[in-house]
Amino acid sequence: MMQKRTVLITGSTSGIGLSIATAFAQQGYNLILNGLEANGPQLAETMAAEFSINADFDPANMLDPAALRAMVSRAGEKFGGIDVLVNNAGIQYVSPIEEFPEDRWDAILGVNLTSAFHLTKAVWPFMKKQQFGRIINIASAHGLVASEYKSAYVAAKHGLIGFTKTIALEGAPCGITANAICPGYVKTALVDKQIADQARTHQLSEQDVVEKILLAKQALKQFIPAESIAALCLFLASESAATLTGAALPIDGGWTAQ
Amino acid sequence: MMQKRTVLITGSTSGIGLSIATAFAQQGYNLILNGLEANGPQLAETMAAEFSINADFDPANMLDPAALRAMVSRAGEKFGGIDVLVNNAGIQYVSPIEEFPEDRWDAILGVNLTSAFHLTKAVWPFMKKQQFGRIINIASAHGLVASEYKSAYVAAKHGLIGFTKTIALEGAPCGITANAICPGYVKTALVDKQIADQARTHQLSEQDVVEKILLAKQALKQFIPAESIAALCLFLASESAATLTGAALPIDGGWTAQ
Amino acid sequence: MMQKRTVLITGSTSGIGLSIATAFAQQGYNLILNGLEANGPQLAETMAAEFSINADFDPANMLDPAALRAMVSRAGEKFGGIDVLVNNAGIQYVSPIEEFPEDRWDAILGVNLTSAFHLTKAVWPFMKKQQFGRIINIASAHGLVASEYKSAYVAAKHGLIGFTKTIALEGAPCGITANAICPGYVKTALVDKQIADQARTHQLSEQDVVEKILLAKQALKQFIPAESIAALCLFLASESAATLTGAALPIDGGWTAQ
Amino acid sequence: MMQKRTVLITGSTSGIGLSIATAFAQQGYNLILNGLEANGPQLAETMAAEFSINADFDPANMLDPAALRAMVSRAGEKFGGIDVLVNNAGIQYVSPIEEFPEDRWDAILGVNLTSAFHLTKAVWPFMKKQQFGRIINIASAHGLVASEYKSAYVAAKHGLIGFTKTIALEGAPCGITANAICPGYVKTALVDKQIADQARTHQLSEQDVVEKILLAKQALKQFIPAESIAALCLFLASESAATLTGAALPIDGGWTAQ
Repeated sequence: MMQKRTVLITGSTSGIGLSIATAFAQQGYNLILNGLEANGPQLAETMAAEFSINADFDPANMLDPAALRAMVSRAGEKFGGIDVLVNNAGIQYVSPIEEFPEDRWDAILGVNLTSAFHLTKAVWPFMKKQQFGRIINIASAHGLVASEYKSAYVAAKHGLIGFTKTIALEGAPCGITANAICPGYVKTALVDKQIADQARTHQLSEQDVVEKILLAKQALKQFIPAESIAALCLFLASESAATLTGAALPIDGGWTAQ
Repeated sequence: MMQKRTVLITGSTSGIGLSIATAFAQQGYNLILNGLEANGPQLAETMAAEFSINADFDPANMLDPAALRAMVSRAGEKFGGIDVLVNNAGIQYVSPIEEFPEDRWDAILGVNLTSAFHLTKAVWPFMKKQQFGRIINIASAHGLVASEYKSAYVAAKHGLIGFTKTIALEGAPCGITANAICPGYVKTALVDKQIADQARTHQLSEQDVVEKILLAKQALKQFIPAESIAALCLFLASESAATLTGAALPIDGGWTAQ
Repeated sequence: MMQKRTVLITGSTSGIGLSIATAFAQQGYNLILNGLEANGPQLAETMAAEFSINADFDPANMLDPAALRAMVSRAGEKFGGIDVLVNNAGIQYVSPIEEFPEDRWDAILGVNLTSAFHLTKAVWPFMKKQQFGRIINIASAHGLVASEYKSAYVAAKHGLIGFTKTIALEGAPCGITANAICPGYVKTALVDKQIADQARTHQLSEQDVVEKILLAKQALKQFIPAESIAALCLFLASESAATLTGAALPIDGGWTAQ
Repeated sequence: MMQKRTVLITGSTSGIGLSIATAFAQQGYNLILNGLEANGPQLAETMAAEFSINADFDPANMLDPAALRAMVSRAGEKFGGIDVLVNNAGIQYVSPIEEFPEDRWDAILGVNLTSAFHLTKAVWPFMKKQQFGRIINIASAHGLVASEYKSAYVAAKHGLIGFTKTIALEGAPCGITANAICPGYVKTALVDKQIADQARTHQLSEQDVVEKILLAKQALKQFIPAESIAALCLFLASESAATLTGAALPIDGGWTAQ
């Protein structure tokens, strides 16, 4: 790699996204961080210094298409292109269909699915020009199977996998691959919130939710390490994965195998 | 069946939806027709007379949640409940991701996916109260696999299958099943338009599009008859299908088998 | 249908197979029954009289290719062709991989998978000649997902679905469709035995096995009625299903949706 | 890794298997090579010297269960355990169902599926004892979808994926993961033979077979490099993949995405 590559990761100031960002930084990629945390700019500065890379922070809201386009445009100009896009930002809401708030449906589809469309469209000219690109969509085991009370999330994640496949086909003639990663339960703030939500919905203790509901679906009774998802992202970004495209890759402790 | 059952079918004034409506009418179901055709009211009148059923027409726009709720509310009161909901309305748009119009993305997700959410939520109390319901979502082979230039449609149809699975799980304790039907190419006005669009996009004759693009994916070189989809809907609505739920059923001439 | 159609159903002297046979007989199909029960010939006689059809019994062992070929050959000649083949015979064995008996592996692959190959090959010339055929393979939810301790059964049923898809592609040009039905738990002698086996393996009461293991996987806490599988077979044999081919159709109470 | 790990790879004296062996050797794993090539012993010697590892060759025939058990037993004793098993050996045969030779069906199921059962059963006590194991089954895109004239191969590869899922569930409590890799077309001797076979079956030139049949299914018109499959094997063997189990991972140039 003669020139440093650049990766843009949404929702990367915490949780899975931050693990992914750290893994790419360790490999020498330049970073565009994005997220809601107030300390985004400092985080970018710290990582740039620690890993001797260029790093930028952009607070673009996933529900604001103009902001997403502007983020890509700035990044592409500043770094001379974007090599890897990781659509990682996601939100969740748990409710029976009967009471599912309509604004939560719209927000979940907007953040978890439609933002990936806007960003993919925006990075496409950069990737096409250089005849190289990697689009990695962080879907979920819920992109392959369902759980009750998560209608919007399951729809959005299934939709993201459908989007991934389409983009893979369109990217094949121009050196762009697109894949989805489908993790089981990762211990993040998002999951902590789900544990609390499900405890309320199911009227169980939080401990019971973890054992009987969350990890009940996984044969392996361990949360998925965020670092493992990051390692799979690096693999997908590597030359070894040049022909791996259009796939939905579970990393779910045996959830979808049963 | 002591009392006549009632079916609400979106997009049922033409194409697949009209075939489905006709099949249910022949079985004596009361109908709520819906669609864009101006002759909707007359169509309802004609079918009511022909099949000795009650039939209503509601022009609710799939992008107008309040209108969808009102349609269900009126229908539920008038017919004393809704037994079967067929989410059939759909639109398509074909374009490379690079130029995919953002308003087309939003409209396709709205009509092909989000309308099913609003309608399912609205019929749920009726179905739950009577401890019987059948939700049938007309997805597509594109709910299972992709074709290039159809990013929004493929995402929406995959999303619809994810939604279906979730609803199936939530409906299991209260006598409600939910399934998706995944047709291959059916000869409808929608497909006629696609043929023209793809001819333009790929710079081929329309005849070549049919043979080399549309039916190239199906092992069986025939369009799927709308009547076959209607027959599958009737099967799903029957008592025989009481334990068939959460499935995505291809009827695609061998498309997704290869 | 000017002439009576003929259906050959393996493992049809009891359980699911007998339900399927009864459903076809009620529609006026001629039957070739097959199975291990000693009363096969009397059963054929009784059904022939009850439904005013022709019915034959053949005790061909699923592990004896020559007997399978002879059964088809005799049936084809006697009835002037075979229109529908239902590969339903199946056996099960439950054991951890470490102790899985090798002869059980071979027998399960032989009965649940290889017999379908021999029978399909044998009926093919008859179906091809008449440019009409329906091959219906009774797979299982275990053709789509796994459960522990069932390595041979899960492998065989997945294999049967792969076989089904291939045959669907080859049958498309000659009027032959092939589909797999993937039931959840049906209350049959086979399942009764599994309940006992799993109780032993997991050291649980049989009641606990039913609630916590068998139906734990289904959202719908009911066994699948054999009659529902039979109704789906009839649908697949009908003209309405002429373009439905290569599919694996779950009827599993929401098992594979989650 | 304080102690060197050991990998057993079937069919590893040429093609994909040899690439996998080389990749593991480069990482310092001890090797058990297996295959039909006469130069197996020399190959083991050469690789041992080149990579400063221990390497053994065993010519066990995939159709001989006793030989498979003996290979594992010897290897486990000699190397003090087996950490990674790669079931890679495979054969193919292309023929319409009508003429598919019965001995070819049996051989393909035996080599491509049943050998994995015998070897998994044999390595299980070693992996269980050390509470670590990786089972990697080289399936195929044909483990997920079909092509005509390959009934045995498609059945066997689907079966191998079902087997993989089951083993993943059973291995979860004891540190053993199991996954399947599903490559598209790799340029190997096996594929060279298929090209010739298909040319004969379809009456096309070999060049036409490559472009119109083999790679027609892949969006990316390139063969999959064997080295990419090897890199994915290494990833699956790594600590990063400790929670990735029960998956069927396509690396197929966008074949199964459409």
